[in-house]
Amino acid sequence: MAEFDLIAAIRARAAALADARGDVALGIGDDAALLAPPAGRQLVVATDTLNRGVHFADDAAAGDIGWKSLAVNLSDLAAMGAEPAWCTLSLSLPDGDARARAAFVEGFADGFLELAARHRVALVGGDTTRGPLSVCVTAIGFVEPGWALRRDAAGVGDEIWVTGTLGDAGTALALDGIEGYRDFAVRRIDGADAGAGVDSEADAASAWLYQRLRRPQPRVAAGRALRGLARAGIDVSDGLLADLGHICVASGVGACLDAAALPASPALLAACAADARRALQLGGGDDYELCFTAPARQRDSIARALAAADTPAVVIGRIEAEPGVRVRLADGVMWTPSKRGYQHFG
Amino acid sequence: MAEFDLIAAIRARAAALADARGDVALGIGDDAALLAPPAGRQLVVATDTLNRGVHFADDAAAGDIGWKSLAVNLSDLAAMGAEPAWCTLSLSLPDGDARARAAFVEGFADGFLELAARHRVALVGGDTTRGPLSVCVTAIGFVEPGWALRRDAAGVGDEIWVTGTLGDAGTALALDGIEGYRDFAVRRIDGADAGAGVDSEADAASAWLYQRLRRPQPRVAAGRALRGLARAGIDVSDGLLADLGHICVASGVGACLDAAALPASPALLAACAADARRALQLGGGDDYELCFTAPARQRDSIARALAAADTPAVVIGRIEAEPGVRVRLADGVMWTPSKRGYQHFG
Repeated sequence: MAEFDLIAAIRARAAALADARGDVALGIGDDAALLAPPAGRQLVVATDTLNRGVHFADDAAAGDIGWKSLAVNLSDLAAMGAEPAWCTLSLSLPDGDARARAAFVEGFADGFLELAARHRVALVGGDTTRGPLSVCVTAIGFVEPGWALRRDAAGVGDEIWVTGTLGDAGTALALDGIEGYRDFAVRRIDGADAGAGVDSEADAASAWLYQRLRRPQPRVAAGRALRGLARAGIDVSDGLLADLGHICVASGVGACLDAAALPASPALLAACAADARRALQLGGGDDYELCFTAPARQRDSIARALAAADTPAVVIGRIEAEPGVRVRLADGVMWTPSKRGYQHFG
Repeated sequence: MAEFDLIAAIRARAAALADARGDVALGIGDDAALLAPPAGRQLVVATDTLNRGVHFADDAAAGDIGWKSLAVNLSDLAAMGAEPAWCTLSLSLPDGDARARAAFVEGFADGFLELAARHRVALVGGDTTRGPLSVCVTAIGFVEPGWALRRDAAGVGDEIWVTGTLGDAGTALALDGIEGYRDFAVRRIDGADAGAGVDSEADAASAWLYQRLRRPQPRVAAGRALRGLARAGIDVSDGLLADLGHICVASGVGACLDAAALPASPALLAACAADARRALQLGGGDDYELCFTAPARQRDSIARALAAADTPAVVIGRIEAEPGVRVRLADGVMWTPSKRGYQHFG
């Protein structure tokens, strides 16, 4: 399938969403898109690339790759408190069988556009090129001036919150034996592996962990709900310690976390003993939850706002003046983690 | 060098330009950039990826890759008549020797930021990831509503213009024996290859062809000058026939070109006999000139506006009702090209 046919196929499916928004003057198909931003808002722009064999497995499903490539960018916008609006997509595909390529693009578009539709995000441009499988997405949204959740806004005494649960995606990576995760002591929880025949509850838990890894839900509604209430925010993509560490460095503060307060899913509890669980909650990436800080006086307002946004969240620690991130273990012992999780290059 | 060090190195060099613009509320270093678009303008957004071995040679200089990855996107904005403002950069780098990677990033940033500075474009975000060498850039600019040069706006009777000269980058690709170009009959014009000792004029011509390929100059000033004068516009990235073909399809028209009017550089004339020259002018990509259409009555105004923008341009044909692109050869014979140049995938 020629490049234009690939583009045309995606374009046709993207057009309805672009039309529905009313702010896309010209979408896919020209040298650039023409967009009408709302008056009095700041633009919020995020770009992230997913590469085969690095950010997703060689045998990952096309639809999951499509979903996740948009999700990680919407998660960045959510972490700023932004309302997503538009995106571009640059898709590099290996040469080879035209039918396989077309099938990949169709599956990819299914996942990508399903998530786009959920958040009313219009795909307005991009390109397809030949090369190793790689996806680069740029997402653009809006926020009221001064209301963005920046990394550099945490204050000493702020409570540290996190949405949802932590360590789920990391557990799925550990189950798959992915480098950097294979040393975590996790156990398969699906019935087949346990040799116990069909175990629908365990199967469901296992499927849920993989769903967390493959189809993360960007916390867009939560990010919007936190404007004016939270101070600093970030999404948990590299792992809680690494990402909270970014907030601390940018804000010139430190943090103390309470290990017992870290939220755990039932599936995580089923798959891990306490040590592995804590390690995955603190160091596992790819959960795409929001970590944010807020003055303690905002606690009730935040709880109400997040409940209205249908997003669970808990307080997991506090911002302190002393630099670095520390963890108070269940026995009261303080533990200072190493830098593991910070390094993308070896 | 860890990802953060790479980002920090680029960030420090990009900060001055972002500060100077005054519309970058938050640049590199958070989940997303915060930008203040001017009131009453449309946003113009383009995304393009360059992959090693596809869009640039395996041994391409880092600085040239940096320059070109931004240039192709600024060229897209220029083809819309837009004023460029901001960009994001997603850089995938292979694992390996940390010093070599750091040296690559430094050279890459040199080229990228040199071009960015020329056009006052601020690098405001992006990421670096591990993967096969690949560069994805998104460029954002502005245009007055209704003034963009779209592909679908050509009218029957419009004159077809092109800036600069055509076929230069294609000649450099042919000299290098790049696939798709190696069948063009070009001859080396540098003195050494001709066996004639030092020939500084020929050396300069050869160097100029390579400069056209490696450091294309996006026609930003010309695109701005054409607002309100030209109707349809596109940049010549895939080759004149292919790109003018896009205008014709989008506008529901056809085109007739005059082969004798196609602009040729002295270097092209030195490297090619008439047949190869015409083939490269019509089919060679990577020149990043602007091709645009305008009513004949605008001819003088356009000539003045482009002269003020220091951009040479000539009329090379006319828009006709009959679909397709035709070429009138020097002997008056009409030639209808094949679809060559349209296909990015085989």
